[in-house]
Amino acid sequence: MPKISLKGTNMPESPIRKLVPYADNAKKLGRTVFHLNIGQPDIKTPEVALDAIRNISMDIISYSKSEGSDEYRRKIANYYKQNDIHVGAEDIIVTKGGSEALLFAIGSITDPGDEIIIPEPFYANYNGFSVASGVTIRPIVSTIEDGFALPKIEEFEKLITPKTKAILICNPGNPTGYLYSKEEIQELADIVKKHDLFLIADEVYREFIYDEGVKHYSVLSDFGLDDHAIIIDSVSKRYSMCGARVGCLVSKNKNLIATAMKFAQARLSPPTLAQIASEAALDTPQTYFDEVIAEYKERRDTLITELNKIDGVKVSAPKGAFYCIAELPVEDADDFAQWILEKFEHNNQTVMVAPAAGFYSTKGLGKNQIRIAYVLKKEDLISAVTVLKHALEVYKK
Amino acid sequence: MPKISLKGTNMPESPIRKLVPYADNAKKLGRTVFHLNIGQPDIKTPEVALDAIRNISMDIISYSKSEGSDEYRRKIANYYKQNDIHVGAEDIIVTKGGSEALLFAIGSITDPGDEIIIPEPFYANYNGFSVASGVTIRPIVSTIEDGFALPKIEEFEKLITPKTKAILICNPGNPTGYLYSKEEIQELADIVKKHDLFLIADEVYREFIYDEGVKHYSVLSDFGLDDHAIIIDSVSKRYSMCGARVGCLVSKNKNLIATAMKFAQARLSPPTLAQIASEAALDTPQTYFDEVIAEYKERRDTLITELNKIDGVKVSAPKGAFYCIAELPVEDADDFAQWILEKFEHNNQTVMVAPAAGFYSTKGLGKNQIRIAYVLKKEDLISAVTVLKHALEVYKK
Repeated sequence: MPKISLKGTNMPESPIRKLVPYADNAKKLGRTVFHLNIGQPDIKTPEVALDAIRNISMDIISYSKSEGSDEYRRKIANYYKQNDIHVGAEDIIVTKGGSEALLFAIGSITDPGDEIIIPEPFYANYNGFSVASGVTIRPIVSTIEDGFALPKIEEFEKLITPKTKAILICNPGNPTGYLYSKEEIQELADIVKKHDLFLIADEVYREFIYDEGVKHYSVLSDFGLDDHAIIIDSVSKRYSMCGARVGCLVSKNKNLIATAMKFAQARLSPPTLAQIASEAALDTPQTYFDEVIAEYKERRDTLITELNKIDGVKVSAPKGAFYCIAELPVEDADDFAQWILEKFEHNNQTVMVAPAAGFYSTKGLGKNQIRIAYVLKKEDLISAVTVLKHALEVYKK
Repeated sequence: MPKISLKGTNMPESPIRKLVPYADNAKKLGRTVFHLNIGQPDIKTPEVALDAIRNISMDIISYSKSEGSDEYRRKIANYYKQNDIHVGAEDIIVTKGGSEALLFAIGSITDPGDEIIIPEPFYANYNGFSVASGVTIRPIVSTIEDGFALPKIEEFEKLITPKTKAILICNPGNPTGYLYSKEEIQELADIVKKHDLFLIADEVYREFIYDEGVKHYSVLSDFGLDDHAIIIDSVSKRYSMCGARVGCLVSKNKNLIATAMKFAQARLSPPTLAQIASEAALDTPQTYFDEVIAEYKERRDTLITELNKIDGVKVSAPKGAFYCIAELPVEDADDFAQWILEKFEHNNQTVMVAPAAGFYSTKGLGKNQIRIAYVLKKEDLISAVTVLKHALEVYKK
């Protein structure tokens, strides 16, 4: 039998994969399973995007340019201008989701054995991309006590070695919902310039910000990071079209773009149909976003209010995205997540959550935490937290 | 300025990229450029696939399962059964084109520094995927004199070291059009079993076979390769939907599939819209294929007949796919390809070809060869070869 590679063996499993059979089984028993575990929103895709697909007039679904169609990239550049991000079509490579943008970025700036510093907890799949690229993640702990704020810059400097190639942030953050302030981005800008590193910012949740007077600061707005900043972006959450698999990599660094283009050429082209939908989505009316943001704000407020009612649960209120990390009064959230699916029901309902350990790179951290995605409607969120509350009472015994 | 990685620096450029500005310029001068350089067919996508897209009823473009939708995979398995490939839905992972399937395969079975043996000339992007994965290609030369037949098995054995993890073939071949016989696949089967290697077969051109009584033999038909064979597949050429970016990885080796699944999970999902089109495409009536194959057969016959009329041109008649390698009476096909776009026109027409050196890994090979894709209609092919004939006469002086 020929052998699997070390890389393949080391690729992490999805943190929720082993829970799936338990969820399936609960459904077979007739139970309602509230999925707090995934980032698949129930929000409708804008009609303008769906219409573009229904009305396609092509008779050959042909390759697009490797960097994405010129027209789509020009329209993305225009979208960025409206968001204080001053880039041109030539600074943008359309990718298969944010995932591929991140792979191209990592491939362009790291060799096996190199290191990337990431505040943890972080999006679990960063682990997968690092293993696939042979890169080591140097995590820097942000804590629930501090609301997952940016760790002190001294902590970053302690980790920087000649192998360090980049700092990677997700802003607003999955899984924490934390939104970096202007000052925090400025601190990161100073450190990457001082040490000549790239600053990769996953900004796919840019629009999902819920509080008055709070603003998102992109690494490519006014921080003088033309040589250093790389934005990872995606249409997945912005227009609730996760299945499109369209994102982009953005940088003013010409060498970086030229290098990423070689990775883009090797895989030929981003998906043509989904690019058509994504281009049309840029014409989504503002009323759509107003409604979506109002909906998420209500969900967030509901979720946090309800969670805070449970004895022993600690939660850091998210300022953006649609996730939060909650600390539970249990020793092992992994065991609890399985138990609640396997053994528990309340009014014939149960919940699926993502144990947070998979969002940490440091072993042992996050063991009593879960990530909750508030992508369900308000009534379902209330029911789900009610299940959680009763479950914790039973589980403690 | 932060640095580009060695990997990024070493990523190969597309063999035709530097010719693109010359082709663009020729068009600006009002010249017709016949594109013999690309694998984008002018054949229409089946109506059944386009209709499925026009009639989508979803209101959220959501993620599919990481391995692709169950229904689509069951239908793919059924398609394979009709092609003497006996696999189930559980042996299939839907990917973003054949490209991603190959990346998952290489990632699952190689670590940086490992080696893969590939008969050359080979599909140029295999170079890119190898660099991206840190793998070394050990090329084994097939020659135009032998019609690009499988090199002798002793030649393979000379190259096998403890670092060798797989043999990779493209069958029928891009860029040679060579179709491996049953005996040749059997020889490969014997050697991978003897040395415990994987046999990766890129079979995306399976249907494109033009001669009576000639048959395609898949590595997963009857060669006893359940543990060893990996098929790379794609809808791109089969249904002329290159822009869909849907392919799949197929293997009966459970460890391999479980490992590739971890790569699949890290990038979440294949494209949802294109999966709908691809699933519908499986219902394409046989008449469509009959017409397409008849069309390509005529194109091939025309192209080869016309090329053989040119003094000093040597060409190996392809048995499948829609490419051939032609040897030209020039020293440097790269220079010729640029010259013909930049300096030559015949009846205000010129041609773009792919210099073949980019399809070889051994430096210096293929320098006087080009790859021609016969994806243009017969009249255009005749005009294109006429341009080539006149150009060679002028270029020689």
